[in-house]
Amino acid sequence: MAAAVAAVLIGVLLIIGSSAAAEAAPRRRRPCKRMVFYFHDILYNGKNAGNATAAIVAAPAWGNTTILSGQNHFGDVVVFDDPITRDNNLHSPAVGRAQGMYLYDKKEIFTAWLGFSFVFNSTELKGSLTFAGADPLMNKTRDVSVIGGTGDFFMARGIATLSTDAFEGEVYFRLCTDIKLYECW
Amino acid sequence: MAAAVAAVLIGVLLIIGSSAAAEAAPRRRRPCKRMVFYFHDILYNGKNAGNATAAIVAAPAWGNTTILSGQNHFGDVVVFDDPITRDNNLHSPAVGRAQGMYLYDKKEIFTAWLGFSFVFNSTELKGSLTFAGADPLMNKTRDVSVIGGTGDFFMARGIATLSTDAFEGEVYFRLCTDIKLYECW
Amino acid sequence: MAAAVAAVLIGVLLIIGSSAAAEAAPRRRRPCKRMVFYFHDILYNGKNAGNATAAIVAAPAWGNTTILSGQNHFGDVVVFDDPITRDNNLHSPAVGRAQGMYLYDKKEIFTAWLGFSFVFNSTELKGSLTFAGADPLMNKTRDVSVIGGTGDFFMARGIATLSTDAFEGEVYFRLCTDIKLYECW
Repeated sequence: MAAAVAAVLIGVLLIIGSSAAAEAAPRRRRPCKRMVFYFHDILYNGKNAGNATAAIVAAPAWGNTTILSGQNHFGDVVVFDDPITRDNNLHSPAVGRAQGMYLYDKKEIFTAWLGFSFVFNSTELKGSLTFAGADPLMNKTRDVSVIGGTGDFFMARGIATLSTDAFEGEVYFRLCTDIKLYECW
Repeated sequence: MAAAVAAVLIGVLLIIGSSAAAEAAPRRRRPCKRMVFYFHDILYNGKNAGNATAAIVAAPAWGNTTILSGQNHFGDVVVFDDPITRDNNLHSPAVGRAQGMYLYDKKEIFTAWLGFSFVFNSTELKGSLTFAGADPLMNKTRDVSVIGGTGDFFMARGIATLSTDAFEGEVYFRLCTDIKLYECW
Repeated sequence: MAAAVAAVLIGVLLIIGSSAAAEAAPRRRRPCKRMVFYFHDILYNGKNAGNATAAIVAAPAWGNTTILSGQNHFGDVVVFDDPITRDNNLHSPAVGRAQGMYLYDKKEIFTAWLGFSFVFNSTELKGSLTFAGADPLMNKTRDVSVIGGTGDFFMARGIATLSTDAFEGEVYFRLCTDIKLYECW
């Protein structure tokens, strides 16, 4: 009988022990949610007021707010309200808007810093995700941080892998956004 | 006796099992801290230099930095240093300052994107909370993310529900900020 | 024998109880990673285009983008791409770049709000850390939030304690950045 009790005790301690070990180990890097979206940026250039979704709002002393400045646009700040689509077609139904700003921040090559949100308000998706981080946009892919979320994405955190899906001169670009959330509530 | 041991074993496993289930289930959405504040924004308009707490600092090509631009202020960027009060009275003692920026980011209606901090430095509160996210300001309430904190709010994360408590033309607005922290250290 | 079983039961409950208590207690404030870096900001002033790493890109109505404005630079927004070094020597090899923006946000004293990333791309460090928060820069030290990370700093969160290591007029400053991560994956 004492042996049976000891077995129970050992079994219980083994269970508790393995649970403690799991807590100490590194967290698994498997997304709890993954989604892919495209968003489309049409920059105001003095002639496209009708369909522009973005505008230069600040520039260094040597630039202006109508044309992207020299030196790889260093210092230009752009505010945007870009449609988000499920596929790479600008004319597909928008499932939300990408809203916020980006700024070009290097003289030698194109790089940017991003602060923006995806705002969803459809029957299938409600809420927002907010992103921030460096975008070395000449790289094929680059990661920015998902720093928060609301609604369907309450308290979310994760990584968004951006890739430039199309680029037409200085007026239009389309970014593929592969969102991987690692904290889901 | 064997029955008694079995009962102990079953009881223990039930307790451990429910604990494991709780860990796998979604985390509870009950705030670990909740606070309500108001902050007050008085926008510089060319005539109120003395008491303005905010100023337009960037605007699109069709705007300027003295008057909010057309098209629902799309592209206007505002820097602010607004007093925070416990109640909705601008003249109540300030418990801190709301500092940072907002930008208007839609041509068709009023929406904004926010990046700012609450900076506390009183006997009761020390430290800061930092906020980011989309503010569809025509909605009665809207959620932005609490993305970090320092001091009393070390490592905090959560949600702030904003509501416009007053709005006087384009010079003054007051936001009620219902802060719910879900990560407290 | 019944006493022995009771002892097992009590022992098990004590173990489970202390585990639950540990979960409820505040998390330990011991960094999982700590690093110190310096970064160097050389502000464009109309004469130093060659070696400037930063430029004013936005200013209030009473300012401009060549010279920092009066009232403690309230409203001036600066975009930067500053070298990061291991020690306090501007001419040491850069291990990365600090990229993003800061804005001055108080009329009465110097304070700023920061949104930027450290971008590493060396053999020893790859990835980025993103920072946001209030910088009351007249204080000897001030804390801002580490709101996300990528690459080697995947999903990081923490606190960066900033201190001004040098300041030369309105052209050069050097910040010591003591980074303490409390969430490491």
